[in-house]
Amino acid sequence: MKKYIGIDLGGTNVRVARVDESGHIEAMVKSPTEIINGYDFVMGNILAMINQVDEKKECLGIGMGVPGPVDTVAQVMTMSSNLPGFAHQPIAEQIEAATGLPTFLNNDGNVAGLGEAILGAGRGCDTVYYVTLSTGIGGALVINQRVHAGKHGYAGEIGNLMIDRGREKINHLNANAVECEASGMALTRKGKELFGADIEHAGHVFDLARKHNSAALRLVDEMAYDLAYMFSLIAHICDPDVFVLGGGVMQGKDLFLQPMEAYFRTMIHDGMQPIRFEEAQLEEPGIIGAAMLPMSLIEPSNE
Amino acid sequence: MKKYIGIDLGGTNVRVARVDESGHIEAMVKSPTEIINGYDFVMGNILAMINQVDEKKECLGIGMGVPGPVDTVAQVMTMSSNLPGFAHQPIAEQIEAATGLPTFLNNDGNVAGLGEAILGAGRGCDTVYYVTLSTGIGGALVINQRVHAGKHGYAGEIGNLMIDRGREKINHLNANAVECEASGMALTRKGKELFGADIEHAGHVFDLARKHNSAALRLVDEMAYDLAYMFSLIAHICDPDVFVLGGGVMQGKDLFLQPMEAYFRTMIHDGMQPIRFEEAQLEEPGIIGAAMLPMSLIEPSNE
Repeated sequence: MKKYIGIDLGGTNVRVARVDESGHIEAMVKSPTEIINGYDFVMGNILAMINQVDEKKECLGIGMGVPGPVDTVAQVMTMSSNLPGFAHQPIAEQIEAATGLPTFLNNDGNVAGLGEAILGAGRGCDTVYYVTLSTGIGGALVINQRVHAGKHGYAGEIGNLMIDRGREKINHLNANAVECEASGMALTRKGKELFGADIEHAGHVFDLARKHNSAALRLVDEMAYDLAYMFSLIAHICDPDVFVLGGGVMQGKDLFLQPMEAYFRTMIHDGMQPIRFEEAQLEEPGIIGAAMLPMSLIEPSNE
Repeated sequence: MKKYIGIDLGGTNVRVARVDESGHIEAMVKSPTEIINGYDFVMGNILAMINQVDEKKECLGIGMGVPGPVDTVAQVMTMSSNLPGFAHQPIAEQIEAATGLPTFLNNDGNVAGLGEAILGAGRGCDTVYYVTLSTGIGGALVINQRVHAGKHGYAGEIGNLMIDRGREKINHLNANAVECEASGMALTRKGKELFGADIEHAGHVFDLARKHNSAALRLVDEMAYDLAYMFSLIAHICDPDVFVLGGGVMQGKDLFLQPMEAYFRTMIHDGMQPIRFEEAQLEEPGIIGAAMLPMSLIEPSNE
């Protein structure tokens, strides 16, 4: 069975694993990123961790998920707010030079979507749009088991999709952006406005809704409508087989999923009704998806 | 030079051409579709026209653009309001059986987008989103010189993208659909409301705007904003290199293109600013793009 190395580089921790082609994690090491020590330190650490998990040099390639948009042609991060000093660095090139293995970089959300498309809830589908409903909202377009990151690495930056006009500008995103209206962060903000500082996260609003609090139920219904609106936008632009949904906000799925899908079905053409919603399945989409990057991108040789 | 047959099947006319791989139309025949005579009649006519343009049997494949969404895996139209009786018919299969040539079907807008991506304004780009601004609004996503029609053939049905809330429902599309607010049809409707029945098409509104009529200038500015909103949606979902714009409404480009692009640039992330807008270049995108279908889809053999 073929084996690959998956790297999940976050602002806090970096994890490196040996993963087989079925998605089984055979070995994994984890370390604090310690970005404070600078780019070269972090890279040296990652190279040592690669040697640890691939002692026998069995792996065929390396994939790495990073927190920010990636130019997948130049193989560099184009922005790295959570990893100061990493933008435009030749990360993949350096790892490739040190290990001799083909190395591929992509955004962490794209990598998780790839994992779900190949081995998770999107398995067997030609077009998968993976959506993370979390503090923010992110996405990944996966076509024929390859991530479509777009020209500038921004395909899937769906948190910035506008779903209305005239709403208040909240942060660097568009006023009216879906992430400002229907994410975990948005639900928390709106919950605080209605119920006070006791609301610490979206789960508290979900709890109130489960107790039939009518204001909380209205917030959840608005979220369901806003998300349906967002999904209808994606559907008309790239018409996926399936939307795969992950992220912490899915803990409220008992409340918003059914009405969301019902709203969605009123917003699309009849011929698009077979589009499905599925819950993400992988326990470690970040690390498994990263390992799937080389699998999806190394051209089969004609041995 | 390799040669292909392109077919542009419309509700009124059908055109069949022999096109070389550089996009040069070597021969073309045209005939009324006469859909009233039924599916078999139309197909018989098309087969005769194919023989006319490819007398010497030089062509390597056949591509056909049709007015409606196509399931590109099953190779059938899924809806055919302008070609009654054509939905779910084995059009490509029958042509392939009669001619012995690999035959591919796709939506006419997708086919035009493919032509522009391979030989027109999108030449050399990995991801092209082609948008027709006409009576209606349509689009095509072309990735690595292949049309991405989506699972159900609805990728690019961007006329139905919602760009606001609370607008009036006009037709079968979503209330708030961009086609109902910013197409040629929409501009005509809004022009009639403001200026009366003398407004027969969008060009009349453009004429008034060119004479500095303030109400007409406002309509054009609203259209520019609405279109910018639509382009920002597409940009965050698939991040193209370039938007290629075609269609009759482009005759008002002197009025709306510059403000549209300016609005658009306020609606996207900094890293996406290199996205370009280009005007469509091909004189016959429908027929040339159809001929590019087999070129883009026939796998190179290992001769």
